[in-house]
Amino acid sequence: MRSSLECIPCFARQAIDAVRVAVNDEAQRMTVMRRIMGELSLIDFRQPPPVAARTIHRILRSETGVDDPFRGAKERFTAMAMELLPSFEKRIARYADRFAAAVRLAVAGNVIDLGAKGDLTEEEAFDAVGRALDEPVAGDIGALERAVSSASKILYVADNAGELVFDRPLIGMLPAGCVTVAVRGVPVINDATREDAVAAGIPDIAAVIDNGSDAPGTVLEDCGSEFLRAYQNADLVISKGQGNYETLSDEDKNIFFLFKVKCPVVAGHSGLGQGTHAVLRGG
Amino acid sequence: MRSSLECIPCFARQAIDAVRVAVNDEAQRMTVMRRIMGELSLIDFRQPPPVAARTIHRILRSETGVDDPFRGAKERFTAMAMELLPSFEKRIARYADRFAAAVRLAVAGNVIDLGAKGDLTEEEAFDAVGRALDEPVAGDIGALERAVSSASKILYVADNAGELVFDRPLIGMLPAGCVTVAVRGVPVINDATREDAVAAGIPDIAAVIDNGSDAPGTVLEDCGSEFLRAYQNADLVISKGQGNYETLSDEDKNIFFLFKVKCPVVAGHSGLGQGTHAVLRGG
Repeated sequence: MRSSLECIPCFARQAIDAVRVAVNDEAQRMTVMRRIMGELSLIDFRQPPPVAARTIHRILRSETGVDDPFRGAKERFTAMAMELLPSFEKRIARYADRFAAAVRLAVAGNVIDLGAKGDLTEEEAFDAVGRALDEPVAGDIGALERAVSSASKILYVADNAGELVFDRPLIGMLPAGCVTVAVRGVPVINDATREDAVAAGIPDIAAVIDNGSDAPGTVLEDCGSEFLRAYQNADLVISKGQGNYETLSDEDKNIFFLFKVKCPVVAGHSGLGQGTHAVLRGG
Repeated sequence: MRSSLECIPCFARQAIDAVRVAVNDEAQRMTVMRRIMGELSLIDFRQPPPVAARTIHRILRSETGVDDPFRGAKERFTAMAMELLPSFEKRIARYADRFAAAVRLAVAGNVIDLGAKGDLTEEEAFDAVGRALDEPVAGDIGALERAVSSASKILYVADNAGELVFDRPLIGMLPAGCVTVAVRGVPVINDATREDAVAAGIPDIAAVIDNGSDAPGTVLEDCGSEFLRAYQNADLVISKGQGNYETLSDEDKNIFFLFKVKCPVVAGHSGLGQGTHAVLRGG
């Protein structure tokens, strides 16, 4: 999907969140932000939002020298999610439809998005995840379950650190040996990288690859060959989060998008209200 | 007060609100927004926010050819406020301390700020104004009343169209013949101009001047000689709204700021929580 005018204040806010973490000196923060505004004056609105976000976060890294400002936040969210995971697994086990419960947990975990809400606290996030397990999801979970049962190569495109822990019950229900989980190639916002996948214990239950890219989404022309091979070979893609939806929603592929609608631009594009927990079929 | 990093997303949002009203073509909107981002890359954070906002709205006017995108909104808010004014005047007459009630109404009217909230509806605004009449105000209304009683030349620096109608009971209680009401020289956002002052009936109760400026605040070096004379000669200034607070808060002058705290930047500078209805002594 294309970027919108409304993405601009959001890009600026995201950049401020990152620059506040990465830089202590207010004058330097202002210099960095001025450079980012200059870059936004060149924005190509035909591209999805993660393309401009990628550029912004490249500037942030090069100007501040801080490669991973959200490393601490990612570790905190992952550690807290790991602590809570056993209780969520027990709750899922009590549902008649355990697959649907695991899907709802995976979608709910998408609230852990510091790109959409930079001041999100762990408490807010985990409260929201806990409540969401019993809330309805827009979309056809049965269709996803049928797609899973007839797939032989599933690519699970992860989104954020911490969220990835809540993907585990669903990943664990996918046919063994058929699943590859893809993370970002380079740290950007709180998107999960290999390090976060390892901390979430993903290598114990699935193959893990990275996409070789530093965009907070899946910009295919930017991805490495290992990811592109896995993507081409997959007969089912499960895509987590808004950034992956924004970049893959126009792809002709057997794909399901699992995400929480967190902004009016994605709400407009998807036709789903803001706040919706969605299981949306693409392709 | 200086501008803050957090002003940037707000400037962008303000510009989007205006460009959506002024321009129908999405491609042209994007071109205008790119130019505005380019301008924000040059922002001087030492200046108060209305200085950058002035530049942005100059670009909007020159790029779109629309001099007053909020003319319609200003007329709607003024007309609705004029309809409601008699009932508010009756309510004020029932208070033991009518001066305090008039001050609370004037402060509450400051909610009508399309710069702070571009999608504010008339209903939301007037509900908020109605509720606020009985709510406490942070600050010393008694000190303002004493300052008024010992003043011989009062300059009342107005803020927004519609809000100006709710300033009328307070202006009407100021010593007759001592009051000049100042509005903006050029339309910017929904700030009141001479036209809005006339529609609000202000010339019937006070002298009206304009400040000759197109900033959404009072940038003294930008103001015309008539305004500057009135400002220098005034022994009391009553300043309405955030934009005037942002530009006059560092002035050495006998001044009271009446406004609603609508953003974290002004909250930080004033030490008052967001949402506070404030009567703040300056100088």
